[in-house]
Amino acid sequence: MNQIQKITADASLSWPVTAALRALAIDAVEAAKSGHPGAPMGMAEMAAVLWRQHLRHDPADPKWPDRDRFVLSNGHASMLVYALLHLTGYDLPMSEIKRFRQLHSKTAGHPEVGVTVGVETTTGPLGQGFANAVGMAIAEKTLAAQFNRPGHTIVDHRTFVFLGDGCLMEGISHEAASLAGRLKLGKLVALYDDNGISIDGKVEEWFADDTPARFEAYGWNVVRNVDGHHPGAIDAAISASLQTGKPSLICCKTVIGRGAPTKQGTENSHGAPLGPEEAAQAKAAFGWSHPPFEVPADVYAMWDQRARGAGLHADWTARFEAYRQAFPELAAEFERRVAGDLPKSFTEAAARAVTEAKAAGNVASRKAGQVVLSAFAPDFPELLGGSADLTHSNLTNFKGTLPITRDEAGNTILFGVREFGMSAIANGIALHGGFIPFVATFLVFSDYARNAIRMSALMGQRVVYVFTHDSIALGEDGPTHQPVEHVESLRLIPNLDVWRPADAVETAYAWRAALARRDGPTAIILSRQTLPAQPRDAATETAIANGGYVLSEPATAPAAVLVATGSEVALAVAARDLLAAANVPVRVVSIPCREAFERLAPADQAKVIDRAVPHVAVEAGATRGWRALVGFAGEVVGLDRFGESGPEKDLLAHFGFTPQRVADTVKTVLSR
Amino acid sequence: MNQIQKITADASLSWPVTAALRALAIDAVEAAKSGHPGAPMGMAEMAAVLWRQHLRHDPADPKWPDRDRFVLSNGHASMLVYALLHLTGYDLPMSEIKRFRQLHSKTAGHPEVGVTVGVETTTGPLGQGFANAVGMAIAEKTLAAQFNRPGHTIVDHRTFVFLGDGCLMEGISHEAASLAGRLKLGKLVALYDDNGISIDGKVEEWFADDTPARFEAYGWNVVRNVDGHHPGAIDAAISASLQTGKPSLICCKTVIGRGAPTKQGTENSHGAPLGPEEAAQAKAAFGWSHPPFEVPADVYAMWDQRARGAGLHADWTARFEAYRQAFPELAAEFERRVAGDLPKSFTEAAARAVTEAKAAGNVASRKAGQVVLSAFAPDFPELLGGSADLTHSNLTNFKGTLPITRDEAGNTILFGVREFGMSAIANGIALHGGFIPFVATFLVFSDYARNAIRMSALMGQRVVYVFTHDSIALGEDGPTHQPVEHVESLRLIPNLDVWRPADAVETAYAWRAALARRDGPTAIILSRQTLPAQPRDAATETAIANGGYVLSEPATAPAAVLVATGSEVALAVAARDLLAAANVPVRVVSIPCREAFERLAPADQAKVIDRAVPHVAVEAGATRGWRALVGFAGEVVGLDRFGESGPEKDLLAHFGFTPQRVADTVKTVLSR
Repeated sequence: MNQIQKITADASLSWPVTAALRALAIDAVEAAKSGHPGAPMGMAEMAAVLWRQHLRHDPADPKWPDRDRFVLSNGHASMLVYALLHLTGYDLPMSEIKRFRQLHSKTAGHPEVGVTVGVETTTGPLGQGFANAVGMAIAEKTLAAQFNRPGHTIVDHRTFVFLGDGCLMEGISHEAASLAGRLKLGKLVALYDDNGISIDGKVEEWFADDTPARFEAYGWNVVRNVDGHHPGAIDAAISASLQTGKPSLICCKTVIGRGAPTKQGTENSHGAPLGPEEAAQAKAAFGWSHPPFEVPADVYAMWDQRARGAGLHADWTARFEAYRQAFPELAAEFERRVAGDLPKSFTEAAARAVTEAKAAGNVASRKAGQVVLSAFAPDFPELLGGSADLTHSNLTNFKGTLPITRDEAGNTILFGVREFGMSAIANGIALHGGFIPFVATFLVFSDYARNAIRMSALMGQRVVYVFTHDSIALGEDGPTHQPVEHVESLRLIPNLDVWRPADAVETAYAWRAALARRDGPTAIILSRQTLPAQPRDAATETAIANGGYVLSEPATAPAAVLVATGSEVALAVAARDLLAAANVPVRVVSIPCREAFERLAPADQAKVIDRAVPHVAVEAGATRGWRALVGFAGEVVGLDRFGESGPEKDLLAHFGFTPQRVADTVKTVLSR
Repeated sequence: MNQIQKITADASLSWPVTAALRALAIDAVEAAKSGHPGAPMGMAEMAAVLWRQHLRHDPADPKWPDRDRFVLSNGHASMLVYALLHLTGYDLPMSEIKRFRQLHSKTAGHPEVGVTVGVETTTGPLGQGFANAVGMAIAEKTLAAQFNRPGHTIVDHRTFVFLGDGCLMEGISHEAASLAGRLKLGKLVALYDDNGISIDGKVEEWFADDTPARFEAYGWNVVRNVDGHHPGAIDAAISASLQTGKPSLICCKTVIGRGAPTKQGTENSHGAPLGPEEAAQAKAAFGWSHPPFEVPADVYAMWDQRARGAGLHADWTARFEAYRQAFPELAAEFERRVAGDLPKSFTEAAARAVTEAKAAGNVASRKAGQVVLSAFAPDFPELLGGSADLTHSNLTNFKGTLPITRDEAGNTILFGVREFGMSAIANGIALHGGFIPFVATFLVFSDYARNAIRMSALMGQRVVYVFTHDSIALGEDGPTHQPVEHVESLRLIPNLDVWRPADAVETAYAWRAALARRDGPTAIILSRQTLPAQPRDAATETAIANGGYVLSEPATAPAAVLVATGSEVALAVAARDLLAAANVPVRVVSIPCREAFERLAPADQAKVIDRAVPHVAVEAGATRGWRALVGFAGEVVGLDRFGESGPEKDLLAHFGFTPQRVADTVKTVLSR
């Protein structure tokens, strides 16, 4: 108790500004009968200082492009951000605070971007909000370098992030902090809610890092031992941090559940309502005598940021208009970029990509991806991405690749071996706006990034994932590097489009779809090995965009349909030829994107998939998902076990990815 | 070049001991026309010093329980470990070295446990080998505390791990190192191959951490600036490190590809053969004039560790026999534990678990999991595990829970918020032997650990994953915490058994199967919410072990079959009652483990699944996988979109998990 008493002695618990935050957090959690009161109560002073004295934002326009970004990485403290938004004047009325955690309220259990105005990212999965914030700071710095001109600073905002012990234990905090330090993100300020408590109790038993020393090792500015309940100390730390040219970690010593007489300082205030008695005593302790969900007008006045925000916004608007006068084309481009609109030349760029893909001929689809990216890149200065230390394997570099470490107006991030951090950073870049982020690694290591991919999909962000080396055909690197379950597993993530192109032209269509998609991420799955270019007439080529189409139709009515994706399309075509020689006419269907195909009207799907005849699906991976398409009458040629180390050809023969086996499977199905 | 010259000046490049390692790495990669020569060439001195002067091992018995463990976390350097095993006298003949990376050789592209004698863990996915090593060191320390007695030290070995820049960039290195520091794993020594190069080039552009300072912040002993090509310096650093009582990081400054005249010190030596000319020049540089794959007898003699190993092993055997004399029961128990055999009382323990489960009645399956674990625990001192900071939510504590931080002979690890590290540590514990590790988190955060789960399955390790809060029914925490795709996605991982029990008794069978399984991991998927106990006769109960069984059969021939898992079994039962009232007789099938069910003979499956009538599957998650079972004629009641935040009952109604909807779906299917 001594530490708690010492800290609380430094600031008045009865300050109405923080009392209002704590009271709303208590009231909402009590009403919901669920939630997390401890963290909002512990971070009240941090929040009050930041949102009233530093954060440049306009409650009337939560989308103002030059606003400061705020991320609550310890998202379970959601009531903190809802209270802040409500009190500072955002369109989040008390009626929504009262509906905390109810179905279809604007006050979900964890903050969700798109659900609540002013929420910049969806948080809850620990550590990812912090990485999102790093992404936002990268986006700000890069956008500033691309658009600011001498005397015209139109991009100049900061990113603030609150995080807790849980975020700092997660590995992703290492990946994101290490890269942020290297990139010297001086406008990134993290405030660490150092309360010494996580769900299992006092963290010292499992988390004894010297966190300040750790962050200094990353090249961060660290402010140690800040009394997290002392507004002046927090204010001074923030002001000083913004002057260092480094990302900053402000270590705020706090008491979780501060103000709750028996539960403060313990995990008992973390994840459940305080209960009526403790709630009442807490309010008494900080001198809050108002009924639940009532805030007096004078306290609202202390919090209201609308006038300040309008002023900041108006200043910026004036500066932006001067910029527009001086650089009308740049200003228009800035507005396009921030709106996320496609360039006007998109159609031409896409056509060029297809042309280049055709010229590339028989290439690995990873190589086709590079050709296509090179074709799009001149028209897409908003592309900002790179690889997790596999640039020359993923082939995500292109003519014009310029790392932001060499020129801050660049378009490439050398992410290092940090798949999860990379992907969550990409989410932050997408959320910030002005960019289309793309990231790359081997498909098997999509596992490392999986929850960030899910978060891209949940948040509906346009992030392009490039996953190469997509099957056992990668060869000698063996089962640790050979995806088996991954393509199907990615398809299970709602709102993620998964493209596995069969050749260079399909790769061009995949990238086109990924760039054009505004409401979610796309994974583009590419081969290490060469894939032959498939012949197509114009109508067939156009049909690629449907996600599934008839690649080849026999002269007579098909006896069966072969369905394949990616590298197995060529296998299906070879099997078709064997079957044709045996007088078995088969249709070959390519389904580069099952999600897109399944969005077609049933009648259009039926032009491709004909349930009157049996189907055999071929994909060098898990078979389960295709059985829905082939039914009991059909069959799947796939792989439901781990691969092995060996040369590609030996592996394909060993695991039965041969034209003969596919042809034999069709014959077997037809003989049933 | 100055740094390289300085380093190489300190040790003779022509030392035959290291020349042999480098020559074999070059030869094998050249012959395979694929592989990674740079890392083995860079770590040759580190390896020579460790394996010849420190590592206590017996090439004649790679399973000797008290051997030191060696982990090559940068697994792409696989030729290093193959050369070491071959030269020191393991059963890995030159014929296998010549078959490096060929199908079914014992020298796979990355080291694979079970494929190559003496390989302790499968590595390649960066960072995980390091975490495995932390797990091995935890296992050693705990096993020693449980079995050693005054004057009788039968468990006393060290864990050595080589790792590179890539491992240290990965987030999992943070999680594992932080926990290792807290646990003061003084017998863990990591040798860092600090060559400044990763695949994209010089790491300084994306990885500028002060790694020594970072590890000191974790409480590690760090030896800085060791010349990684100076045998004496390496030797001294290892010796000193083992005396500190802390885990140690020895930072070895090395030159990747050392000896290759034009490629050393660059990423060009990393992932491709040197080429004949560079290979010849390299061999000339270190004075190796022998034909490919030839090692002179005198060099073999320098390497041979068989006599030394036999001596160490014999010493231990003598000590163990003395221990057996003094503590015969403990010695027998030690042998059982190390062999991984089940306790003799297993059948009784399992029966007790079922009895306790029945007594628990209507409880959440996470609560049932706790009841069952409590029932098994007294008979399973080999259980060693815990939760990623969600102990009181996952309910993985039990009577007798004793954290190893409080008593090193304990059985519980407080993992902190480190899902990936936790899971890879569990793999290390399982690989070490003597324990059955179990780990727990919310199901949605299995994403964070996904590649470690895959590695459990690939390595065939008995790791029990407890994943609770298994559907949208967890309620208010919302879509970030609500699994949708996860159960189906886990089922896609080969060799992972996924149990989703419907009630307490099924939970007992799930744990029984997980404990009894010796060749792979099991995921046990548990609910947050209460699930009613299902009535069963004795035969029905026994059939749970099949993974799928008829829970209830109508009096007349069923018109349809309802298939469900977990919490949806009760829903199916309720729908059955509605349908019975409408004179539609349906069978209810529970499939707690689809993998086990699908291992049944087809005839046995057909007693449960009757394709003569339509099937409706019900699971509160992705529908795709069940469509294989229900075919075109059936239907799946599931969820292929993200959840929302709200109370459980509101969510279940909103998303259609109601008896009425299930019953209506059956009627729809029957009316087709």
